[in-house]
Formats: sequence, C-alpha cells, structure tokens
Amino acid sequence: MSAAITRFDFAESDPAIPKEEAQPLVAELRADLLKAQYARLENPQRSLLIVVAGIDGAGKGATVNLINEWMDSRHIRTLAFGPPSADESQFPFLWRYWKHLPAKGRTGIVFGSWYAPLFRLLYEKSAKRAEIERLAASIREFEALISRDGVQLLKLWYHLSREAQKRRIAKLESDPDTAWMVQPEDHLVARNFKAMRAAADTMLELTDTPFAPWQVVPSADDRMRNITTGRSILGALCAPMPSAAKMGSPVRARPPRAGKRPLARVNYSLSLSENEYDDLLAHWRGRLARQVRSQAFRNQQLVLVFEGNDAAGKGSTIRRITHALDARQYCAVPIAAPTDEERARPYLWRFWRALPAQGKITIFDRSWYGRVLVERVEKFAKPSEWQRAYEEINQFEHQLAESNILVLKFWLAITKDVQLERFKARERSPFKSFKITEEDWRNRSKWAAYTRAANDMIDLTSTPHAPWHIVPSNDKRHARIAVLETVVKALDERLA
Amino acid sequence: MSAAITRFDFAESDPAIPKEEAQPLVAELRADLLKAQYARLENPQRSLLIVVAGIDGAGKGATVNLINEWMDSRHIRTLAFGPPSADESQFPFLWRYWKHLPAKGRTGIVFGSWYAPLFRLLYEKSAKRAEIERLAASIREFEALISRDGVQLLKLWYHLSREAQKRRIAKLESDPDTAWMVQPEDHLVARNFKAMRAAADTMLELTDTPFAPWQVVPSADDRMRNITTGRSILGALCAPMPSAAKMGSPVRARPPRAGKRPLARVNYSLSLSENEYDDLLAHWRGRLARQVRSQAFRNQQLVLVFEGNDAAGKGSTIRRITHALDARQYCAVPIAAPTDEERARPYLWRFWRALPAQGKITIFDRSWYGRVLVERVEKFAKPSEWQRAYEEINQFEHQLAESNILVLKFWLAITKDVQLERFKARERSPFKSFKITEEDWRNRSKWAAYTRAANDMIDLTSTPHAPWHIVPSNDKRHARIAVLETVVKALDERLA
Repeated sequence: MSAAITRFDFAESDPAIPKEEAQPLVAELRADLLKAQYARLENPQRSLLIVVAGIDGAGKGATVNLINEWMDSRHIRTLAFGPPSADESQFPFLWRYWKHLPAKGRTGIVFGSWYAPLFRLLYEKSAKRAEIERLAASIREFEALISRDGVQLLKLWYHLSREAQKRRIAKLESDPDTAWMVQPEDHLVARNFKAMRAAADTMLELTDTPFAPWQVVPSADDRMRNITTGRSILGALCAPMPSAAKMGSPVRARPPRAGKRPLARVNYSLSLSENEYDDLLAHWRGRLARQVRSQAFRNQQLVLVFEGNDAAGKGSTIRRITHALDARQYCAVPIAAPTDEERARPYLWRFWRALPAQGKITIFDRSWYGRVLVERVEKFAKPSEWQRAYEEINQFEHQLAESNILVLKFWLAITKDVQLERFKARERSPFKSFKITEEDWRNRSKWAAYTRAANDMIDLTSTPHAPWHIVPSNDKRHARIAVLETVVKALDERLA
Repeated sequence: MSAAITRFDFAESDPAIPKEEAQPLVAELRADLLKAQYARLENPQRSLLIVVAGIDGAGKGATVNLINEWMDSRHIRTLAFGPPSADESQFPFLWRYWKHLPAKGRTGIVFGSWYAPLFRLLYEKSAKRAEIERLAASIREFEALISRDGVQLLKLWYHLSREAQKRRIAKLESDPDTAWMVQPEDHLVARNFKAMRAAADTMLELTDTPFAPWQVVPSADDRMRNITTGRSILGALCAPMPSAAKMGSPVRARPPRAGKRPLARVNYSLSLSENEYDDLLAHWRGRLARQVRSQAFRNQQLVLVFEGNDAAGKGSTIRRITHALDARQYCAVPIAAPTDEERARPYLWRFWRALPAQGKITIFDRSWYGRVLVERVEKFAKPSEWQRAYEEINQFEHQLAESNILVLKFWLAITKDVQLERFKARERSPFKSFKITEEDWRNRSKWAAYTRAANDMIDLTSTPHAPWHIVPSNDKRHARIAVLETVVKALDERLA
C-alpha cells in the first residue's frame, strides 16, 4: 500500500511556488475571484459551501482569513463549529449544518464540518465498520440532497508531509508573536501522522462522490496553499450548473406495491355517535395530557405530520390534540408556500428548522410531503425532483428516528363527495367561508391526480420507523379519536 | 384601599353571559374577527402581539385554544415561554421575546411573557423597590419601542374572584377527564389571593401606558371570558394606526454638547511607520489572541461595532482583529439593506438576533447606528423615528451592559480628501474596484450631512457603559493599532 500512488503523494512532496512567480498569479486570481463572485450574486442559482478540512497545522485557519480577504467578505459567511452544545446534541448531527445553509448566491465556509465526527471515528479505530459506513452514508445522502437542490459543495483537504507540518509548527512557535497560533492538537500530528493519514485516506475514499468530490490542497508552502485554494474556488464559481446526469441519476421511485392502492382499501364508513365520541375524547385526551406532562416525556421529541385533501379535517383534529397540551410545549406549524428565505435553500431546510427540542412537540399542518403531493401535481417540482424526494424523505425521517425523535404521520382520508359537502357547508358558514377559496375548487378538479400522488406517497414512504397512519375521516368524530388513540399508544410504547 | 374602586372590581363580581344571549354574539364575533384578521393580512402595517396573563386557574390556556379556534390559526403563532434555558439566560431577559417577534400582518399570542419575572418580584416581596422599578422601566421601554415600530400590543389580564377561582379548580378536578387541566400552582391561588391581587395591581399600575394599556378580562364565566377576549382582539385589529401623538411624543434628542463637534476635535495626523506598525501589530494581536483563548473569556460576550465613512478602513481593520481569533468563536456581520424578514419587524430585531453567546464575539461592520446615520441622511427613517432612536439605542446598549455583554464602538474617522484618494485608488485596483460604486460617490456628495449625523450620534450615544472610540484613520496603520489596543485594554479590565 505504501508503494502505491495515493491521493496525498503530490501534497506530501510539499510543492512550492516562488515569490516572483506567485505575485502576478495572485493579482489575476483575486480579480477573477471577485468577478466570479459577483456574477454568482447577480444570478443566484446556487450557493457555494466550501468545506475546509485537513491535517491540523496545515493552515486551515489562515485559509479562512485568506478567502475573506481575497473575496468580498460581505457575501461570505464563516460557519465554524466546535463540539455540539447540549441543545445541539438533541438533534441529528447534521441539524446544525442544515440550520446554517447559506442562501442561493451566497458563499459559506464550513470549518469543523460534518466530517469531524467521521474523522474521529476513523482515527480512533475503536469504531465498528458498520458504524463508520452508516455515518459515511448519512454524509453522502446529505451532500447528494443539498447539491441536487441548489448547494454547490467544494471540499478541500489541506495536506502536507509530516516533516513540513513539524517545521511549520516549530517556526510559528519560535516567534512569540505567532506562537499563539499553534494549538495543542497541532503537536499531535507529527507523532500520529501515519494513523491520521490513513484515517483521512479512508474518509476521502468513502465520501468522494461525483457531485461532491474532494480536492487535496498542498499546504507546506503558503503561496502554493493560497493559490491552489483560490483556483479551486474560482473553478467552482465558474463551473456550469451540472446536468442531471452528472448529479447521479435520480433515485427511482420503487414500483408501488401490488394490489389495490392504499386509499382504495380504506373503510370510509367508520363512524362514532356523539355520545361515544364525547366519552372517548375525554378518555384519550386525558391520557395524552398526562403523558406529555410525565417525567419520561421530558426527554422525548415528538413530530406529528398531518396530510390529507382539503376539508379532510386537519385543523380541527390538530386542535383536539393541542387542547391536551401545555401551550409551552408545542408548536403548530402550518405549511404554505415557502418564503423567500426558504425558497433560497433546499426544500427540507424549513422543516429541519422547526424540529422540536426535548420535551417539545412540533405539529405540521401539511409538511415536507408537499414535495410529492402539491409540488408534483401542480408541477412546481420537476419530475426528477419529486421522484427522488421519496428516498430523500425516507432518509430524513430515518435520521430523526436515529435521534430518538418520534415521527407520527397521518393521512386523513375522505371521499370526493364528502369533500363537496364540506366545501358547500363552509361556503354557507360565516366563519368558515375563509377556508374555501377558488384554489380549493381548482385542487378538487384534480382529485384523481392528488389521489394518485397520495397513493404513491403512502406506498413509497411507509417505513418501519415512520409508517403512514391512514385515518378514515368521512366521520370527523371517528378521525379525531383514531388520531388521538394512535398518538397515545405510540407514546405509551415509547415512554414505557 | 380596600374600599376604593380598583381595576379588578368588575372582574371580581364574576359577571356571566347566559347561554342564549351568548350564541348570536359569538357567531357575529367570529365572523368579524376573521374579516378583521384578513384585512390585516392584506395590509400588513403592523403585527399584533396578544399578551395572555393573569391569575392561575382563570383559563389562560383555554384562551389560547379559543383564539386559535375562532381565528385562522395558520396566521397565528403561539409564543409560549417557560423558565429560560441555560442558553437563554446568557442574554438580557427580553432577548427571547425579541427573537420571536411576529412579522407585520401576523398575530402572536404570548404566554409566559416578559411580565412573569416582574410579577414574581412583586409577589415575593423580597425585591427592592429600585429593582422592581428598573424591571418595569425595561418593560415600558421595550413596549414603547416595538409598538412605535410596527408591533401592536394587546395586554389581557385574566381575573376572577377568589371564590370563583376555587370553584373553577374544584369543578375541573372533580371530573377525571378534566382533572389534568389543573396545575399545582392553581391551588396556591386561593390561599394567597390577596397577595397575588396586590402584586397584579402594582404590576398593571407600573406598566399601563397609552401605547400598551392593560385590559382586565372577567374569567369566572367561560362565555364572558371568551366574548370579552374576542371583542378585545377585534377592537385591536380594527383600531386605526395611532397618531404619533398617541404614541407619546418622540423622545427629543438631547442638545449636542457645547464646543467643537466631536469629529472636528480629531487629530487626523496621527500615523505609524511600517516598522513601528509591524511590531505593534504582532504585540497587540498576540495579546488579543491569548485573551480570547483564556479560561476567563469563556464566560464573556463581546460585541464590536464599526462605523465610519466609506473607505474609512472598516473591513481591513476588522480583518486585523479576526486574524487573532479562532474562527469558531466569532461571527462577522456586515449590515446592508434589511431583508424582507427584517423589514417586517422593529429595526433592532436583526441585531438582537446576532448577539454573541458566552465565549463568542460578534463584529458588526455597520450596525444599529444606521438608523441615525444613513437612514437619517437618506430619509429612509422619519424624523420622529431617528430622533427617538438615540434613546432607544442607549436603552438597548444599557440592557446589554446589564447582562455583562461588553460593547465596544469604533468610529473610524477620515477626512474628505483622504476618502477621495482612497476612492481613486480603489477604482484603479483590479481587486478593489468592486468596493467603489456610484452609491459611494453619491454618499460622498453628502459628506456634510453625514458628518453632522455622525457628530450628533457621538454626542448622544456616548454613554458610560458604551462610549464611542473615535479613531483617527487617515493613516490605516495607526487606526488598526489603536483599535486593537482599545479592545485588548478593555478586555484586560473586564477579564481581570
């Protein structure tokens, strides 16, 4: 293995650029970088996320300063992460990176990126292969998702030979004015160089993908490091939007399950009398109320997702739940058209933002499933976009499950005639007519398309950790009780 | 005192509305509320913040549910606050309320509001009068600021007689289906009713202002409580925009100090040779680097504010500071025109959002002083707006100081001829020409107006806890060293 050509050979030859050669290169590069940055701002189709990683003591910190100096720093955000705080640790490890994704047109420099935990696992050697592969897969999925959805990734690995690293550290330390730049971890590198190199090699191997390739930056010589960095950024800024092919073929939707479609299997005639309902409502609501106030719930995070045709009763069902909750512990999030800030980022961004902390509940009135429902039917998303979304959504929910966040998804199922009745009743009601607009009638005319989309969604995103609960809702009383009962039983199991 | 008419007399008479009388009232009220809500959304000049406070067990939680049921809950956010988390406790107590201010057009219901700590102080009786008055003053200032800047406040105090409260609790508890609604604190009310009532009376007295008056809602009877709540909200939604007079006369800018204006007193000839500069830069930068990496700094929050004419050298001075910092500990925030989300909220909102946590530093490249500089000169703000801003800014910085957040403000002072030189040099430079636009030349033509605004700002916002540091900057080397030295010395004093 040591004789084979490795990705680090060139960097470890410690190449340098002489001063007189560098000067004109730098002048041209800086002008080109600024031009490219402004062109990107004027036509903000993508954001650029620069991952700065590498061997300690290779000059990563200096690189962050360099980028801010060479480019217009007003449009660059340095996103530097240390160990996660107690609050951050409640969420999937990618949560804080999701939260800080820059808007299209902008540039972010990520320092202490999502590679820190993977590198640690690989370097410590105690980790199981499966654990490593799982983490690497999460990273690949994350990068695939965001890069297909408007975030361009440039991943730079700063590298140099063991001797050059030692020399660089010694030189900084010898001068009292620069000695503070040396961190304790910089000293560990020389001693453990081989192990770090091997960990880095495996990490880059596992996460080098067509949409997010790694570039190794030779870092022994400052000029070489700076110019290579600048050129890599320039190359990224000038790269044309990749074709769909380059981004990997869209994940194909698995063929829907055989037999009757899910919504055709629903027993729409289920109903409850008013008396039965009153008793059951008090019973299940009381149980829910006690559960969410229990000691065990303080460490639980709960996400409720409500989908269904217009007038399926999402709002009134949600209210039956919130009546049992302490106003301080839940957040009800109605999902409408995205805001400008949301539109400038991958579609899952706004849902990551709204995830509940421990002891809290987020209730989504419509959700990320809009991608494969309204966005599919109304053609707001391209076919490749909504087709790959099934897999992306499954990955998202899988990450939530791995962080012990309980996700319960409800499809409130009504028939077309019941929708018509409710639309008409709403139009007659002085305080419900606001709920019925021309758009609702337009959507209704696409009933078949929405039903097809819902069936596909249920087939393709019912997973063991987050199955769909299809709730017959022609009778609102039955629907409310069924939802409450499902929530209570799921919590019972979880909190036991 | 007990014989006098108090604000609670009517509520303590426990008035009720009979069922048959209520039904038509409610139907009309709900229709009117929705109409008013939609009118507000179509013409989003103000947001509405409903403070739900009052005696425990008076039905505050039920009220939150009621509002969400009677109005279109998709445009309402319930902002419910428990005790502050460890993260939140690092900031002024108003920080988390600032963070969650709703956008114009929207409605927020605040539960566990900024009145919780004041009520506790008043009720516990151990607090000093001065402490109470200070807290009440912060609240009045906060409410004055946000209500003048687009947030309408409706403050509701839910009240009932001691006997009615006891009856209400007993009734809920007697039914196993509603017993969970009773909180432990509800039982304390009857025992301590007189003391709570007195605390509430003082609190309302201290914070009842023309722009944010309190309304007492009789709560013994559910129908009375609901209808009163609905009518209060309707009244708020339909109220015309208050005149400037109604909002209290704008705080008058104190007359500028006598004698020469601040910027006329600057010694613009201060300079350093390159050799002196190199030595001093290494010295001060090294000291800063060690300070921010010290144990003591982990509990410190630092805010640096940079203002100055175009080409004064803000960016390059900031970089001399960030070179000494760990990328993970600072955030550089360039302030440009506000985004849509920012424009929809009071002007200080975006600065509250960016405050540093413990061990962190926020560097503002331009700041909230834009209100009294560019917004004044370019007439983006009305005279009454920028005139009262001096006081608002002083209050803001005073709150930061009270939370031990160190604020250092720098005005980089250059003369008009030096600006011209720098503009021309920028135009000639291939990688600085982006920094000079037509707007810069336009601003330059208003040099006198900007100078007047800067002089007023320095006179009116130099406070003992946050004085302006005016830095002669015709010589960039001198400016950079002066800023670094000021930061280091201030930190020395603070961390000692």
